[in-house]
Amino acid sequence: MERSYRLVLSCPDRVGIVSMVSNFISSHGGSITDANQHSDPISGYFFMRVEINAASLPFSLERLREAFTPIASSFAMEWDITDSTQPKRVILMASRESHCLADLLYRYHSNELFCEIPCVISNHEDLRSMVEWHGIPYYCVPVDPADKQPHFQRVDELIREHDADTVVLARYMQILPTEVCDRYTHRIINIHHSFLPSFAGARPYHQAYDRGVKLIGATCHYVTPELDAGPIIDQEVTRVSHRHLPEEMVRLGRDVEKLALARGLRWHLEDRVLVHGNKTVVFA
Amino acid sequence: MERSYRLVLSCPDRVGIVSMVSNFISSHGGSITDANQHSDPISGYFFMRVEINAASLPFSLERLREAFTPIASSFAMEWDITDSTQPKRVILMASRESHCLADLLYRYHSNELFCEIPCVISNHEDLRSMVEWHGIPYYCVPVDPADKQPHFQRVDELIREHDADTVVLARYMQILPTEVCDRYTHRIINIHHSFLPSFAGARPYHQAYDRGVKLIGATCHYVTPELDAGPIIDQEVTRVSHRHLPEEMVRLGRDVEKLALARGLRWHLEDRVLVHGNKTVVFA
Amino acid sequence: MERSYRLVLSCPDRVGIVSMVSNFISSHGGSITDANQHSDPISGYFFMRVEINAASLPFSLERLREAFTPIASSFAMEWDITDSTQPKRVILMASRESHCLADLLYRYHSNELFCEIPCVISNHEDLRSMVEWHGIPYYCVPVDPADKQPHFQRVDELIREHDADTVVLARYMQILPTEVCDRYTHRIINIHHSFLPSFAGARPYHQAYDRGVKLIGATCHYVTPELDAGPIIDQEVTRVSHRHLPEEMVRLGRDVEKLALARGLRWHLEDRVLVHGNKTVVFA
Amino acid sequence: MERSYRLVLSCPDRVGIVSMVSNFISSHGGSITDANQHSDPISGYFFMRVEINAASLPFSLERLREAFTPIASSFAMEWDITDSTQPKRVILMASRESHCLADLLYRYHSNELFCEIPCVISNHEDLRSMVEWHGIPYYCVPVDPADKQPHFQRVDELIREHDADTVVLARYMQILPTEVCDRYTHRIINIHHSFLPSFAGARPYHQAYDRGVKLIGATCHYVTPELDAGPIIDQEVTRVSHRHLPEEMVRLGRDVEKLALARGLRWHLEDRVLVHGNKTVVFA
Repeated sequence: MERSYRLVLSCPDRVGIVSMVSNFISSHGGSITDANQHSDPISGYFFMRVEINAASLPFSLERLREAFTPIASSFAMEWDITDSTQPKRVILMASRESHCLADLLYRYHSNELFCEIPCVISNHEDLRSMVEWHGIPYYCVPVDPADKQPHFQRVDELIREHDADTVVLARYMQILPTEVCDRYTHRIINIHHSFLPSFAGARPYHQAYDRGVKLIGATCHYVTPELDAGPIIDQEVTRVSHRHLPEEMVRLGRDVEKLALARGLRWHLEDRVLVHGNKTVVFA
Repeated sequence: MERSYRLVLSCPDRVGIVSMVSNFISSHGGSITDANQHSDPISGYFFMRVEINAASLPFSLERLREAFTPIASSFAMEWDITDSTQPKRVILMASRESHCLADLLYRYHSNELFCEIPCVISNHEDLRSMVEWHGIPYYCVPVDPADKQPHFQRVDELIREHDADTVVLARYMQILPTEVCDRYTHRIINIHHSFLPSFAGARPYHQAYDRGVKLIGATCHYVTPELDAGPIIDQEVTRVSHRHLPEEMVRLGRDVEKLALARGLRWHLEDRVLVHGNKTVVFA
Repeated sequence: MERSYRLVLSCPDRVGIVSMVSNFISSHGGSITDANQHSDPISGYFFMRVEINAASLPFSLERLREAFTPIASSFAMEWDITDSTQPKRVILMASRESHCLADLLYRYHSNELFCEIPCVISNHEDLRSMVEWHGIPYYCVPVDPADKQPHFQRVDELIREHDADTVVLARYMQILPTEVCDRYTHRIINIHHSFLPSFAGARPYHQAYDRGVKLIGATCHYVTPELDAGPIIDQEVTRVSHRHLPEEMVRLGRDVEKLALARGLRWHLEDRVLVHGNKTVVFA
Repeated sequence: MERSYRLVLSCPDRVGIVSMVSNFISSHGGSITDANQHSDPISGYFFMRVEINAASLPFSLERLREAFTPIASSFAMEWDITDSTQPKRVILMASRESHCLADLLYRYHSNELFCEIPCVISNHEDLRSMVEWHGIPYYCVPVDPADKQPHFQRVDELIREHDADTVVLARYMQILPTEVCDRYTHRIINIHHSFLPSFAGARPYHQAYDRGVKLIGATCHYVTPELDAGPIIDQEVTRVSHRHLPEEMVRLGRDVEKLALARGLRWHLEDRVLVHGNKTVVFA
């Protein structure tokens, strides 16, 4: 992988942003390898992502950030610059259902997902062997239904101890407490097994069966304190018919869950997802 | 088109239904050209549709119905036999948006939809010229927002006068009164411009935009007194991104609305849609 | 529609292109409403499309072109600037099959496609009434199979007389002579009723049926002298099964043909399609 | 899993087949849980698949076969009856690319694919650890490019020794000799990484890139002596754009390869795929 710097920014839209940013880059000899921008006329916001060949710039990441700060300030940008060769640290959380976890582990193992996975956390022992085969530590943190607090406290500690950038709820099936959601805003990714906003909450495939829909789906989204209501990163659907019982919807749904989650996580890892309000801009 | 009889039935499932039906057909020399069946283990119901080459049977439609009645009774079937060469009479209703109406008219005009269209009813004059070019009578029945009753009464009269088998709400935008819905159970088809049950009610594309979904859809369903809650016949989706404003979702949505409605209507016209409870069995 | 200038360019990739272009725009107070760029590492080419709010610039289209010329020259750009309020002149050509023509006429009629249609040319009379209802002149230019030259000569004259920017072969079914293809490079759009490169040439649905494929498709492409081998603009597919006879593939295929052609033409009309070699960059 | 007998048959179409088959079943009290049939008017062939609750019949599999033989003979059927609780024995073959193999192993491991996998055969050592973690023997049989015959001979021996019903080429990348193809007609399943018939042969994603297609695909088919020309079981596609380099098409293609292969194999294992000539009837 060629090393690149990824500049990601959003700010109120006005004349001259692209010019200022591209001047900054080209005046230092920077070679842009990918660039995307979006002006949203309804919110009046501007979004941009630029990949710059790192070798073409005379800067370390730190110095680049310093150098860009005045421009960012003058446009009131929310922004970040990351180094494409620095993998994000991603903790995966699961319960008993293994399909999303196995899929992410495979993509990680085969270098399709560029990240580090410091550990996997689950409330059950079932998936330990699969995880450990990949050389990844496995923490089983049981949930006491009568008092879930100790579980969440231990999860929170593990996230801190492992210095995670991102947490992926790969069919984790527990509702995170508000304080955890708030601490990791836009850094916790969930896969919900329905085409949101249809069938939020429990047993969505059974809800879908009862309603008699002809397509079922999955939604990859950032977690917010309100259940299944966070910013949507990606969605995927597949066709079903009267022949499909709920358990067959569950089976077919697994494949769309895996696809939507893997795609959403990949975009997140590559800093392609910008959040504004409760919506995402995805420079895929 | 080869003339065929279409036998459509549903009944509580038990041993021997297929055998009894197929014996009946073959004992009279009937040649089956298409057959579908479905056993639903949850409801315990059995569904079947058989197409029989009419020329292979020594029966008129009337006599065939008589001959089949004892079998139907012994299995407590809901059933019907139709003649594939007898077009259904379909009234189309629209408001100002023309895309669904124009699409259906084109498919009718090019012999893709086998039916008769005795008239089109609208609450506006806008689409008269398009309809009359196709040689179809156009009734403009205005709606007085302060008192909609006269409108619905006239609509109801027109449906009766034209002896319609089926009414299609091709973006008609008015909510039919309960008594009309009840009079034409499973005979009124609506296209809703969202992926139900998401975004029922008004302005679904704006709701979809506000929620930030990544796929938008359309739902073809039978009308029941509860708004946008009837049995779903077909659904279709298309991908959108942050780049799509509500009006662009409206534009993209038109194509999925047209597809879902045309497909659903076609299946209805060919007696491929069986309703059980609030769900459909579609032998497509 | 807000009036905008669309700057579209391609050139060998090097440092500073975006900077130079965006400086040029912002130094004159230009407000960018949409921008896309692409660097192709294999060909070493750079592609860009920028929409600028026309009211924000102190230029007429002519003056803007003049002012931009030095920049374009210094980067060896192929480029153009168009005015979004100037509709392209599009001639539609068809034979007997009406679905693509009717679809484009409807989209034109309902203001979904922004263009002028100075005339429709066909080698048959069949579609005259449909075209004339839209207020568009219809030219029937018969083809003599023994000598097609007079037909093509008359077609060529009509294209010139009507000063067409673009010609759309909406199931025209004749193979244009090389000299016509060469005269209107990247300005003649065809819809081929298969998923190219599979099933080029005649009767593609029958070829698809014989091969037993499980998806059929359509391809919208620019016409080049080599049959069905020009740069692809868009493709679309739909699922089929063993139940679909060739004539049912023809029916299902119509819907994907309409979608692929309408989408491709729309992108072409909005100057979103850039051609490099035998491939397209589509800033959709 | 409820035990069922699966009766699968094809024969020249004529009056009375369904009646004879369903009488046979119901006269012995058999309860049909699923049934599909298809009459192909072009070939004049009839195809049928019936699932019968095994407990409802007073027969062993052997006796059922005996009892059905006279009916089969009288209609010149090609037919088989299988027991749904008897897993097929499936040998997986791979080379170095692991995605299809890992996907099938996962589905096997999680009981999504009902079969036995007596061994995996590869011409490389790379995938040994992954396979052995699943408790499945791994045979590495190297290929000498100068003389491939010993490789194929050993593969053939392994297939016999393990008494395989089915062989899956999960990106095996070698062309099986004609005699092996002929010995296991309709029992060797391959996944080809293109939307056949486009891009048969080597490096299909690079061929797709060069042609500039806008959708890439994968094809699951039975292997015949002619390369990539056997009966197609399933196909899947995904959208690509000018942004996708060949290696990104390879990455995106993996997901459609996995889906098409897993679906095709599942249908095969459930006796849902009937072959006639070079085409399949899939009762999905």
